[in-house]
Amino acid sequence: MIALFPGSFDPVTLGHLDILKRGAQLFDQVIVAVLNNPAKSPLFTVQERIDLLRESAADIPGIQFESYSGLLADFARKREIHYILRGVRSEADFAYEMPMAQANKQLTDELETIIMVTNHAYAYMSAGLIREIAAAGYASIFESGFDDKVLDQWVTPTVKNMLKNKFM
Amino acid sequence: MIALFPGSFDPVTLGHLDILKRGAQLFDQVIVAVLNNPAKSPLFTVQERIDLLRESAADIPGIQFESYSGLLADFARKREIHYILRGVRSEADFAYEMPMAQANKQLTDELETIIMVTNHAYAYMSAGLIREIAAAGYASIFESGFDDKVLDQWVTPTVKNMLKNKFM
Amino acid sequence: MIALFPGSFDPVTLGHLDILKRGAQLFDQVIVAVLNNPAKSPLFTVQERIDLLRESAADIPGIQFESYSGLLADFARKREIHYILRGVRSEADFAYEMPMAQANKQLTDELETIIMVTNHAYAYMSAGLIREIAAAGYASIFESGFDDKVLDQWVTPTVKNMLKNKFM
Amino acid sequence: MIALFPGSFDPVTLGHLDILKRGAQLFDQVIVAVLNNPAKSPLFTVQERIDLLRESAADIPGIQFESYSGLLADFARKREIHYILRGVRSEADFAYEMPMAQANKQLTDELETIIMVTNHAYAYMSAGLIREIAAAGYASIFESGFDDKVLDQWVTPTVKNMLKNKFM
Amino acid sequence: MIALFPGSFDPVTLGHLDILKRGAQLFDQVIVAVLNNPAKSPLFTVQERIDLLRESAADIPGIQFESYSGLLADFARKREIHYILRGVRSEADFAYEMPMAQANKQLTDELETIIMVTNHAYAYMSAGLIREIAAAGYASIFESGFDDKVLDQWVTPTVKNMLKNKFM
Amino acid sequence: MIALFPGSFDPVTLGHLDILKRGAQLFDQVIVAVLNNPAKSPLFTVQERIDLLRESAADIPGIQFESYSGLLADFARKREIHYILRGVRSEADFAYEMPMAQANKQLTDELETIIMVTNHAYAYMSAGLIREIAAAGYASIFESGFDDKVLDQWVTPTVKNMLKNKFM
Repeated sequence: MIALFPGSFDPVTLGHLDILKRGAQLFDQVIVAVLNNPAKSPLFTVQERIDLLRESAADIPGIQFESYSGLLADFARKREIHYILRGVRSEADFAYEMPMAQANKQLTDELETIIMVTNHAYAYMSAGLIREIAAAGYASIFESGFDDKVLDQWVTPTVKNMLKNKFM
Repeated sequence: MIALFPGSFDPVTLGHLDILKRGAQLFDQVIVAVLNNPAKSPLFTVQERIDLLRESAADIPGIQFESYSGLLADFARKREIHYILRGVRSEADFAYEMPMAQANKQLTDELETIIMVTNHAYAYMSAGLIREIAAAGYASIFESGFDDKVLDQWVTPTVKNMLKNKFM
Repeated sequence: MIALFPGSFDPVTLGHLDILKRGAQLFDQVIVAVLNNPAKSPLFTVQERIDLLRESAADIPGIQFESYSGLLADFARKREIHYILRGVRSEADFAYEMPMAQANKQLTDELETIIMVTNHAYAYMSAGLIREIAAAGYASIFESGFDDKVLDQWVTPTVKNMLKNKFM
Repeated sequence: MIALFPGSFDPVTLGHLDILKRGAQLFDQVIVAVLNNPAKSPLFTVQERIDLLRESAADIPGIQFESYSGLLADFARKREIHYILRGVRSEADFAYEMPMAQANKQLTDELETIIMVTNHAYAYMSAGLIREIAAAGYASIFESGFDDKVLDQWVTPTVKNMLKNKFM
Repeated sequence: MIALFPGSFDPVTLGHLDILKRGAQLFDQVIVAVLNNPAKSPLFTVQERIDLLRESAADIPGIQFESYSGLLADFARKREIHYILRGVRSEADFAYEMPMAQANKQLTDELETIIMVTNHAYAYMSAGLIREIAAAGYASIFESGFDDKVLDQWVTPTVKNMLKNKFM
Repeated sequence: MIALFPGSFDPVTLGHLDILKRGAQLFDQVIVAVLNNPAKSPLFTVQERIDLLRESAADIPGIQFESYSGLLADFARKREIHYILRGVRSEADFAYEMPMAQANKQLTDELETIIMVTNHAYAYMSAGLIREIAAAGYASIFESGFDDKVLDQWVTPTVKNMLKNKFM
């Protein structure tokens, strides 16, 4: 069976990779679907986000990477994929996922959402917060001694380097 | 007794109509108050939204339609209306409504918020998600075969036609 | 229109009375339905609870008092009542009320639940906590100087006296 | 892959069957694990609950039925099963499942919890509420005219008959 | 011990002042840290917000006022402050604070978040809602008779005057 | 300043100890208040629970241990203590703590609740779940090879030994 693992991945975090790894054990193939939303101003381009994913997930077998725009259910139907994989970190996350899963099931009865609970070690972290931490940290690095080893608990070395390049 | 049923209604959904119908049984009159918020960029103009409401709710007796801007409590006071009718779909919805109801009660002790629980068949759906589904669906209609019958479970035929006109 | 206002009322609190008063303004008649649940061990008997309600709500017009056991929807159907009135104090309360309201609507399409948000001044308090406070306070009255004026913010003088009688 | 679908199933509902059917499409085999908890007083015995499950789920391929007691993770380890399947109806349900899933993952890294969102048509209903409705309904059948067709939206005919036998 | 009490304070409310007063009793010193976020368009400038805080909190001993931008944890590290003080009004507020507190603790093990529950009398109100009420109220003052005494339950006279100046 | 850290501690977990350690840095003294609730049937006696706390927290300075029964606010008033320290693991936990904190503040304005967010590594675990895991694990130790090293991530060696003694 094949699953879509959709998201912005701006950038990919260890939390994303944890779900991706666990999803790759359940499904024969997982297609990481990177949202290309022109209305938002992402830190990394779609291509950069896919590159970071590819390098960060190099040791996970059976995964592919694509970008999509528009409605996820539409993308799934075109690809004839029947499963969406989502990691949920908190009750607040679930409050967002539940109606989306219901709506996708109503859009086509063949589209099933599979939810896994994010490992507690990453449950409080988000890509957005990582962007904020990196932006503030690297901008002030010479002044207050930002030790970017702190980022290692949330992102891969590849992603950390790219964040450094963006903000220094 | 008279109640205000406020919202953006961009566009009106079957979920809105369900609450409106149930509210019209409880109150002598329900005034649907369409928010005119210039800071947002709605899909439909205020007049279009009122027209869609009027046609979609043609079989519900005892309702009127108006637009308002600014503070709802202010609008209610000017109209000497003492009840606000709200449909709530989820705990997350309620987390938003509860402080609003408290604040409106403090603004004037005579303004009471009446909450009804949205029918489960519509509880996962929102006007925003319907806009997204219609936008993605009609834009891709020739390519992947979007069957817009799927929209019939969430909006009236009138609204579906207007969505089609907007996006095709 | 007539509404049922169901609960255990063991004992009635100012929070209950606030909802009851606001409900009595909306409905022509409100029947306070006191749950007689033999499986629980209430502090006050059904008759005591009704007596406390009657005295505490003496200034609210258009209300009656009855006891019921079994399913509330069943009681409503026998009385041909189509509205249930409920006060909700918090998101957690709402998480309990929402499925009950949905179930009652499915049991008979004619049974509507009307939710009002409890006044913030009573939103943190419950009859159960009042029982605990009274039990601990009156038991220790001579030792640590329990000043039972503290109860006046949550119950009527009548209820306070009955609590005193139970625990001293 | 094999999944455990644990629960009390006292009795099995259409909500359970919906998740079971969807789980049976994802997994090669689903073992329905009926909790035998002597501390609780179930309405149906373990054997009755398994019989009701077996008859109600007769058209779902690839499922088996067992009872268990004690810790679910322990049962999974003995059976060498690595997936637990759970249906979640609400944020409140998820608040219960999330720490259980985390704990089971910590107990053995090989035990993964897969969450599916219950179909909205069953999201407000529980086995406990069905027991209450049946108890109240059948007990009062001659007096107020309980029409047990209402149960058909939540349970199979087999379960309805067994409920009738228990309560009449 | 010293604590940071961070926020936008646009403008300071009685809810903020309640937490500030309670925090000043627990800590030797509280530094009110006013967020300078150029990406947002605040109603009041940073300097105006600090001035309003200073006047509104004149009777609270042991507090200072500063502005900051960027990451709060960064600001705390530069000042060698180990405590963040936060007031929480609701479950929804807490859902926002919990991961922030976890992240700040991971950024530096020496940064502790201390949460106090906002007094129920202010729990439904926010600076944003006060801005909306003042904007709508003062704009319509001659027409519908806005009595700005209503604002006294949420802000100090100093803040009320500044709101009046902004909107009339 | 002195704080009460109340709970059942049946038995003390590493999550409790984490909050206790952090609380001991904020307060001059923390009194661990072990609830003696005769209505519940704890696994460990009050004395055993205090002994386990004392040994497990031997390296935390400035703490004492006492038992209490009845209302916590009553106990605090008798001891003239103005702070309650609580660890919160989740939104669901907070939903329980918030009204208790409000009620305690209303009972006496001098009783303040200080909430810290439990370290994510312990946030999914509870004393109750540890009792279940230990009970199931030790009971089945010869059959399926329960490796009780799994308990080391949640309790101290002292507590693990006591659990082993209780269940083997």
